[in-house]
Amino acid sequence: MPDLSVVKNNPAEMNAAELAQACADELFRRDDASQFLGMRISGVAPGAATLTMVVQEFMLQGHKTCHGGYLFTLADSAFAFACNTYNQVTVAIGCSIDYVAPAYAGDQLAASAVEKSRSGRTGNYDVEIRNQDGSLIAIFHGKSYRVRGEILPQETTDE
Amino acid sequence: MPDLSVVKNNPAEMNAAELAQACADELFRRDDASQFLGMRISGVAPGAATLTMVVQEFMLQGHKTCHGGYLFTLADSAFAFACNTYNQVTVAIGCSIDYVAPAYAGDQLAASAVEKSRSGRTGNYDVEIRNQDGSLIAIFHGKSYRVRGEILPQETTDE
Amino acid sequence: MPDLSVVKNNPAEMNAAELAQACADELFRRDDASQFLGMRISGVAPGAATLTMVVQEFMLQGHKTCHGGYLFTLADSAFAFACNTYNQVTVAIGCSIDYVAPAYAGDQLAASAVEKSRSGRTGNYDVEIRNQDGSLIAIFHGKSYRVRGEILPQETTDE
Amino acid sequence: MPDLSVVKNNPAEMNAAELAQACADELFRRDDASQFLGMRISGVAPGAATLTMVVQEFMLQGHKTCHGGYLFTLADSAFAFACNTYNQVTVAIGCSIDYVAPAYAGDQLAASAVEKSRSGRTGNYDVEIRNQDGSLIAIFHGKSYRVRGEILPQETTDE
Repeated sequence: MPDLSVVKNNPAEMNAAELAQACADELFRRDDASQFLGMRISGVAPGAATLTMVVQEFMLQGHKTCHGGYLFTLADSAFAFACNTYNQVTVAIGCSIDYVAPAYAGDQLAASAVEKSRSGRTGNYDVEIRNQDGSLIAIFHGKSYRVRGEILPQETTDE
Repeated sequence: MPDLSVVKNNPAEMNAAELAQACADELFRRDDASQFLGMRISGVAPGAATLTMVVQEFMLQGHKTCHGGYLFTLADSAFAFACNTYNQVTVAIGCSIDYVAPAYAGDQLAASAVEKSRSGRTGNYDVEIRNQDGSLIAIFHGKSYRVRGEILPQETTDE
Repeated sequence: MPDLSVVKNNPAEMNAAELAQACADELFRRDDASQFLGMRISGVAPGAATLTMVVQEFMLQGHKTCHGGYLFTLADSAFAFACNTYNQVTVAIGCSIDYVAPAYAGDQLAASAVEKSRSGRTGNYDVEIRNQDGSLIAIFHGKSYRVRGEILPQETTDE
Repeated sequence: MPDLSVVKNNPAEMNAAELAQACADELFRRDDASQFLGMRISGVAPGAATLTMVVQEFMLQGHKTCHGGYLFTLADSAFAFACNTYNQVTVAIGCSIDYVAPAYAGDQLAASAVEKSRSGRTGNYDVEIRNQDGSLIAIFHGKSYRVRGEILPQETTDE
């Protein structure tokens, strides 16, 4: 358990890695959709994030493999955490996914998002989803757009 | 309630519209993922399908709008039903989505998929998601690939 | 030949259709790339444009069909003219193309771009390329981003 | 100049690297479109290819930067050479491009394609276009589809 007395909570005092982690923690706390599916953040860095998710029965479609929508959702969340590591509210404007191999109930999936570019208001991110054997399941590409606002609450003088 | 004694259950005796409906019914019955999210098929025709879904609390992400993954999942299901209306098992090989406007808890979404092309093993489908006001929420494009097998069970001689 | 004495050249005096045409004329005049490939503007309206191009020998790739790059370029130009009909400089940030059928030397192609959405700085456009028989050759989707500046020169007091 | 007396021209005798090079040479020889734009193959390996192109005046659009269509064409060719390195005729079924930074007249561009997946008839390839400074200009993704036929001519008994 972290010693809360020394946790920095002022974004201005954090380095880039600390800021990325704080943003991810804050967003995950608010993100019912990702939590509902059992996603976990297994790593975060400036412009990058890895999320894990276990394929559950309710995620299966008619062919008894994971519905593409849940693969997409996992990748989309990894992308969202990756592009929101700079404490600037950033949204997705478009994404694509290519399916490489099916995922089955019980599969332990990891989605790793990396930043390919970021300039002006827009950015591009690549995500790979792999299963517990390291096999590639899907490839995802997301385009981000920075809007107004910050992710972390502004520190007040009393905190 | 339909008079089951006259329902055709032999694919070879159905016209294209009947075949499309029978395929959608069969796939929906097996599709835990779409049912889990409360999707309903509101219309189906050869190469086309419309699905509805209400945005629920658990679908919201950190900004309290519907997670893009659930919008994608709705569109992806509409696409899947549309491209599987010919009684030939057809899978998605890649999809893209562009977000136009946010969806909120309680919004009644409809995703309408239409076929743009189908030749050889592959096809292209466009999907639009609109809310209860008819406002465009997202645009989706799916590429399909026909594999082996039929959707409907083969009729046996005793039926 | 138009009577130039009555041609409006002040954007503020044009209606939406006139503005769209004036923007297209101005952009086409500067667009060496589109002219070089023999493209013609066959129609323009607010948020829409149709361009034509004949497939030439130098556009053929190893299989003796039109290189996808030239199909893309035609669609991309139609998209560019469509999203620049409001006298606001608008650029592409990302595009996709799906190939439906091959195009051959001598084919007369028409690419028609229509606006699917436009809000804030971004927009989405669909383009269809068809040949002289009306057969669908390719489907294209473009995402636009409005930057600073206007397309038409500001009128000076002497003009 | 290679000593032609020892050049292997029987695909069955080549290793994977030799086969990739032979396929690229054969396709490039037939590819008027790529040659017309001054493209050069600077490297090829199984599932990978790098092509170069100098931005010429006729490639500029209205804003005097390289028309996206030519960037796409360069990336598309790199993708085509990469997915055709196995002596199996393979075509593009869909591609996307994201523009990161503009390219100007005289820029020396290099497009590097790498294989992300290949199974069954389909494959996925990523391409990056960079300029002479190593700056990222565009990101491209291509989806391939293997059709019938081989790229290299069958050896006859007399050769």
